[in-house]
Amino acid sequence: MISIGERINGMFKDVREAIKNKDPKAVRELAIKQTDAGASFLDVNVGTAAADSIGAMKWLIEVIQDTVKTPIAIDSQKYDVVKAGLSVIKNEVLINSTKGDTEELDKYMNLSKDYNASLICLTMDKCGIPQDIERRMEIVMKIVEKAVELEFDLSKIYIDTVLFPINVDQKQPALMFEIFNQIKMISDPPPHRNVGLSNFSQGTKEKRLLARTFLTMGIPYGLDAAVMDVLDKDLMDAALTAEIIMNQHVYSDSYLTACRK
Amino acid sequence: MISIGERINGMFKDVREAIKNKDPKAVRELAIKQTDAGASFLDVNVGTAAADSIGAMKWLIEVIQDTVKTPIAIDSQKYDVVKAGLSVIKNEVLINSTKGDTEELDKYMNLSKDYNASLICLTMDKCGIPQDIERRMEIVMKIVEKAVELEFDLSKIYIDTVLFPINVDQKQPALMFEIFNQIKMISDPPPHRNVGLSNFSQGTKEKRLLARTFLTMGIPYGLDAAVMDVLDKDLMDAALTAEIIMNQHVYSDSYLTACRK
Repeated sequence: MISIGERINGMFKDVREAIKNKDPKAVRELAIKQTDAGASFLDVNVGTAAADSIGAMKWLIEVIQDTVKTPIAIDSQKYDVVKAGLSVIKNEVLINSTKGDTEELDKYMNLSKDYNASLICLTMDKCGIPQDIERRMEIVMKIVEKAVELEFDLSKIYIDTVLFPINVDQKQPALMFEIFNQIKMISDPPPHRNVGLSNFSQGTKEKRLLARTFLTMGIPYGLDAAVMDVLDKDLMDAALTAEIIMNQHVYSDSYLTACRK
Repeated sequence: MISIGERINGMFKDVREAIKNKDPKAVRELAIKQTDAGASFLDVNVGTAAADSIGAMKWLIEVIQDTVKTPIAIDSQKYDVVKAGLSVIKNEVLINSTKGDTEELDKYMNLSKDYNASLICLTMDKCGIPQDIERRMEIVMKIVEKAVELEFDLSKIYIDTVLFPINVDQKQPALMFEIFNQIKMISDPPPHRNVGLSNFSQGTKEKRLLARTFLTMGIPYGLDAAVMDVLDKDLMDAALTAEIIMNQHVYSDSYLTACRK
């Protein structure tokens, strides 16, 4: 599982305060804690409250890079903020994210190539988020075709299937499993299959149980990346257990610790 | 999930002692506790220590039926013990189990019909347990054909795919998911897909985590029945959560309690 730690986000009060006061302490701590928990990437999102999004993104990235060598996911819907983040990047980097419109894909894939960045591509476009598998797969094919055209390494593409909260649409999860499976078979190597996991169970009473159950159910179908709460040990243990069951790591009695080293 | 509570088994010391001393207390308690936990069936197995297996099976069933109305799974490899159990049965009943040889299927399906019992059929025969999907599916087809021939209701057949412990064979779980999926598409209604869940993780350090993770991963592929530890609340909650994710029950914030009523 490629786990993208979601905690360095201005939506959270501690990060919002850190940005406002230019106090790096909380950010450093979150970088270290998430890295220790096994995060593959640290997502960085300035949130909506920052007066200077560009400055805040650069500052956050610099603080993190001064602290850990963990790869960074620059998370913003604003192209200028992403570009500013890239201008100070030293660690390995992932851009989170672009929509699936041709002009957006062109712009973001070319930018990603310039910085040797990986790229999350959402299965949505200016017309919105399609409800059926067929239309989502059309967007997936558009993403893959554009990558091939631009000679963009498909193993650096993360297709985000845009997971809805279960209390909004209970029919979607089963469709997601089908989509992961189809994406997995598109090419060799295929693009990664990514979800925003916390979004799935936000606002529910059994938030953590729903999130980790969805994650483990998705893994046999090919789900291999998620923006998620890596500090939730039950979630990380469940993901690793699902991978052991799929024979993705060699089983040993102490796999929970052994596979993390 | 059709949950077959595994606890009334002479393998466990409390049940072994109860049988030996003809003391119904522990058996009654286990019948009530498993029923309260949501067991669809109570598995009854006299174990290997009972001097009089036939007498022990009849006694256990009578004690349970005096206590609860929960359906009973008569669990024995001995035909005489199964028959003795059936002779005193009043609750709904499932026979656990027969192998997939033609003569065995004939014998057990006819017996099941006589008592309006459901029947667990193992995907193994006198040659052993096939390692590959194809040979297991051949046994599945033999079971289904025999049921059709004897006009045995397929919705009362439970195909047990003979789940190996993960520390014995780590390649099997993924094959199991494929087999559940294939069985689900055999007929309408299809036979149930059953496993002996505790067997999967026995002897491992993360026994409960492995069991519940396998169960949730199997549900999208069609796993719908298991002989399992229904007293493990985390396991029961995980199963229900997987079913909610598959849209098998209507979501509500309190689904963990609402769906159990």
